[in-house]
Amino acid sequence: MDCRKFIEEQVAAIKKAVGDGTAINALSGGVDSSTVTVLGHKAIGKNLKTIFVDNALMRKGEPKQVVRIFADMGIPVEMVDAKDEFLSALKGLTDPEEKRQAITDTFYSKVFSRLVKKHKAKFLLHGTILTDIEETVAGIKRQHNILEQIGIDPKEAFGYPVLEPLKTLRKDNVRELARQLGIPAEITERIPFPGPALAARIVGEVTEERLETVREATDIVEEELAESGAFQYLAVLLNDYATGIRNNKREFGQIIVVRCIESVDAREATATELSWGKLNQLCERITQIKGVNRCLYDLTPKPPATVEYI
Amino acid sequence: MDCRKFIEEQVAAIKKAVGDGTAINALSGGVDSSTVTVLGHKAIGKNLKTIFVDNALMRKGEPKQVVRIFADMGIPVEMVDAKDEFLSALKGLTDPEEKRQAITDTFYSKVFSRLVKKHKAKFLLHGTILTDIEETVAGIKRQHNILEQIGIDPKEAFGYPVLEPLKTLRKDNVRELARQLGIPAEITERIPFPGPALAARIVGEVTEERLETVREATDIVEEELAESGAFQYLAVLLNDYATGIRNNKREFGQIIVVRCIESVDAREATATELSWGKLNQLCERITQIKGVNRCLYDLTPKPPATVEYI
Repeated sequence: MDCRKFIEEQVAAIKKAVGDGTAINALSGGVDSSTVTVLGHKAIGKNLKTIFVDNALMRKGEPKQVVRIFADMGIPVEMVDAKDEFLSALKGLTDPEEKRQAITDTFYSKVFSRLVKKHKAKFLLHGTILTDIEETVAGIKRQHNILEQIGIDPKEAFGYPVLEPLKTLRKDNVRELARQLGIPAEITERIPFPGPALAARIVGEVTEERLETVREATDIVEEELAESGAFQYLAVLLNDYATGIRNNKREFGQIIVVRCIESVDAREATATELSWGKLNQLCERITQIKGVNRCLYDLTPKPPATVEYI
Repeated sequence: MDCRKFIEEQVAAIKKAVGDGTAINALSGGVDSSTVTVLGHKAIGKNLKTIFVDNALMRKGEPKQVVRIFADMGIPVEMVDAKDEFLSALKGLTDPEEKRQAITDTFYSKVFSRLVKKHKAKFLLHGTILTDIEETVAGIKRQHNILEQIGIDPKEAFGYPVLEPLKTLRKDNVRELARQLGIPAEITERIPFPGPALAARIVGEVTEERLETVREATDIVEEELAESGAFQYLAVLLNDYATGIRNNKREFGQIIVVRCIESVDAREATATELSWGKLNQLCERITQIKGVNRCLYDLTPKPPATVEYI
């Protein structure tokens, strides 16, 4: 891939589309949305309003860290606290598709609609990549950022058009592009993290307490596996409970699944063959989280599993 | 432990208690109930009525296999089909304690009460061992065969007294005793299997279809790990579902947990450090079971987990 040519073309395309207007984009801190942010900033400078929405579904320390990284690159990011709005939209939902839908609706129809109006933005820049489109079209998973590909006109549905400069690229190309754009390694080499964030890591209802549990587990998994060289690693909180013993008494505890995979582009994956020293260390730390008394390791390749659980 | 002396004492005690009457005992095929069966048969011969209750919760081929083994030892076993009775008692139940209670009630108050009356039995011989009593008294788990220890008088509650000749022994002593009694290795060296059988391996409702799924997974796990030298190995069907891909389409599939442990006497345990070749082989076979698209390996020691899930 010719990164310079791609950057030139996309910068020109964004300039042409937005003109003197204002565009808005949502930064999650992932490599896709970060790359779009830098491309947009290159194209239209201060006419790009970059928003980080704190949806309550982020990892430990993530909101502040993302804002700091972009400030260091000279790109201002506005942090919007929408935690309560997302949590109340998710309240009582257990079906994975309903949860994804609630996040999409809250994100686009509520929080973003409001911000677009506030900033008088004419366009939304979005970090959709090719794999998202393929999986959504194939009916495998509903990505929260796929709109046109499944026949929803965002202008019609939400009141603004969406520009997706990365929609012809796969993850490895996006990383290459990001490096070329000078985005620091803590983002370009960051493992993939799903659009619905920690909500994709909770089977069953998403509550503040359950988010805290999976956030803690995620922090442990990311710390322990940072040097693993794996493509992606994550923690999932199941809805099921299992019998255990704590201080010689019966305890009905929660179950955390650790998933760590080898993959080139997330289309296919196999479980990383971690050492028993590492597996035992993960289990020991994870079963110290309040209310958790089981730690399981996911052995399943993709297919027949996906990487995430919901 | 002096096995001969123990056998002599227990045989004498059973003879004395039962006299010319009839005793009945339930054989599950586990080492505990098998040992009690042989002790009882030694003590009172044909006045012991040994019953194998097919409760729909047994492993593949297990009912016929158990009857055959005892026929080979000259001990007649009556097979009683109570499948429908257990399945309807379990219908709709998801709470582990309620499930155990339903099995206990169906076993003692219904099926066994009926058989005791039919056979005019004065006593029930039962394979309770010391670990069962300790865990029940400690409130860790309700074993289905602990009655007197938790203040229930079986004569009062069910209409017949219970004799528990093994209640001072732990598992390793029972195995030693069983070998001494000439019970074949397929029973004496058999891995432990819980009283509630496959119902203890299902999180959520126990139905015929879900039993079939966990029965198939159990068969795979027992075949693959027969040579592992582990203390116990088992498959658990969770109630949660996870997203997967089958034939390029989204599939919401079931999750099987494989548990394999090292232990001396089941009081404490650690996960067996299986090779990755074996883990991958287990996963490949288990995800071929209809409706199953995830296979997880339980990393957790006891404590904080127990061996079983419910």
